[in-house]
Amino acid sequence: MPPFPSSVVIREVGLRDGLQSIQTILPTQRKIEWIADAYAAGQREIEVGSFVPARLLPQLADTAELVAFAKTLPDLRVSVLVPNLKGAERAIDSRADLMLVPLSASHAHSLANLRKTPDEVIAEVARMRAARDAAGSKTLIEGGIGTAFGCTIQGAVDQSDVLRCMQALLDAGADFVSIADTVGYASPAAVRDLFEKARHIAGDRFCCGHFHDTRGLALANVYAALEAGVARFDATLAGIGGCPHAPGASGNASSEDLAFMLADMGIETGIDIERLLALRAKVAQWLPDETLHGSLWLAGLPKTFANHTAIA
Amino acid sequence: MPPFPSSVVIREVGLRDGLQSIQTILPTQRKIEWIADAYAAGQREIEVGSFVPARLLPQLADTAELVAFAKTLPDLRVSVLVPNLKGAERAIDSRADLMLVPLSASHAHSLANLRKTPDEVIAEVARMRAARDAAGSKTLIEGGIGTAFGCTIQGAVDQSDVLRCMQALLDAGADFVSIADTVGYASPAAVRDLFEKARHIAGDRFCCGHFHDTRGLALANVYAALEAGVARFDATLAGIGGCPHAPGASGNASSEDLAFMLADMGIETGIDIERLLALRAKVAQWLPDETLHGSLWLAGLPKTFANHTAIA
Repeated sequence: MPPFPSSVVIREVGLRDGLQSIQTILPTQRKIEWIADAYAAGQREIEVGSFVPARLLPQLADTAELVAFAKTLPDLRVSVLVPNLKGAERAIDSRADLMLVPLSASHAHSLANLRKTPDEVIAEVARMRAARDAAGSKTLIEGGIGTAFGCTIQGAVDQSDVLRCMQALLDAGADFVSIADTVGYASPAAVRDLFEKARHIAGDRFCCGHFHDTRGLALANVYAALEAGVARFDATLAGIGGCPHAPGASGNASSEDLAFMLADMGIETGIDIERLLALRAKVAQWLPDETLHGSLWLAGLPKTFANHTAIA
Repeated sequence: MPPFPSSVVIREVGLRDGLQSIQTILPTQRKIEWIADAYAAGQREIEVGSFVPARLLPQLADTAELVAFAKTLPDLRVSVLVPNLKGAERAIDSRADLMLVPLSASHAHSLANLRKTPDEVIAEVARMRAARDAAGSKTLIEGGIGTAFGCTIQGAVDQSDVLRCMQALLDAGADFVSIADTVGYASPAAVRDLFEKARHIAGDRFCCGHFHDTRGLALANVYAALEAGVARFDATLAGIGGCPHAPGASGNASSEDLAFMLADMGIETGIDIERLLALRAKVAQWLPDETLHGSLWLAGLPKTFANHTAIA
């Protein structure tokens, strides 16, 4: 068995990838409560929103406020998504710790979703890096390569396209790169193969896997990624989310199921799963009209479970 | 990456493990249609029922009829579950190809579920083997070790208890042994560890993994089992099922999601997934009051999917 990472970070992206995909608009105060409870449950990396124009995603219009609150919590890495230079400038102003720039390895999906080619996004990343450095800002830049296992528009995406984008993002000044299976096309053998190649290119700067559970394989894919040495995963509480430009792509990896899998494997996450389940119950009450996902909340923790990885 | 098996058998256990756990009693004619359609979709191993007293499981009272029908289909391995010698005699009379004898590695679960200790089940297997040989029958005997990763009554189950039962089953004359995570307590690292040890003891006579999706990890656990070289898995169409004596243990690995994962990994299963999804839709219509599971049916196959493993 390959050595698994001894600790793993679950980055909670429910407030961004989750809330942007559902109808309900959660009030800012609820989001603050979510962030505070996730922090209390031991989560130390949260993507709190997206610096996109409010007319496009009104449900994320309070991102600056959420960054300001989240920044008051010690040792919390506060992430935001930024689609372009304007968003990056707002992220830098907000003093977010990390900004994730989405890029689609699929040319067709990139045009449909971002209205730019992959190379245009990479050029924008270089401008973001220049803006960040000019501002003397410490906001890290993560290039997130989506549709890495195929897309619903063009179908197959070549591994070489993904790896070329990865190298180009690094060359353009991204501090980190990550890979996303935006539409749930990945299976574990493909994940392990691509992630091993990505690690070869980017080493520890390849920092994160993002899996949708569209076809039920999100956690199997995480397991394969762990074998490739990746130690950070995006997930959403109750599996909320999906990509609005990828039909059928509903459901992220569920944070609570993922936390359970990792804990049961003896991998440190810092998360108190009971508290995370309590938060899930609260969020479920806030979103009565939405389809939620995940399995652990219904079955509960095994009688044999020892929460080795909970914070003291 | 370890070499994966080049082909894998998905044993459909929905007609037994699925139907015994739900309220709806499916008419025999529907079950025959299910078996015929599963066969037409390429499934070559089906557990059609259980030789238990009809007063205990009236929904499985037609097992002998189903074996008789299934035996008319060329190259189909017809399995049944048998709890005791009486059931084994009926299985031998029915000319089933294989009879699975459940055993709980958990002493407490064994008493609650089977009203026998593990050693008493092993002694019964020796009597079944003698009866099989005396009858000149070719019905294979599989000892299925359940609660192998813990149980809801006693909690932890020692790996050594599982492996001891396995050796004793082989010594008692079982042709094959298998391991089941009856209540969804397994995670992939534990699966790989136990399955590698089991392969060391039983080699290819350790023939099957049976995973419940209680906490969302069934397919991740299958992946870990594949890494240990296991090439046969139980699954149920639409994930129907669970163990009636294991509260909360709802949902088997879904046959269609598993078939997709394996096919996408380039592993031969002989299954035409489109036909399997059509059968799922039919069975869902037959079971309007039951909670079904699985993800693929809703999302559909990826645009990139090539059904390499379909039969010609």
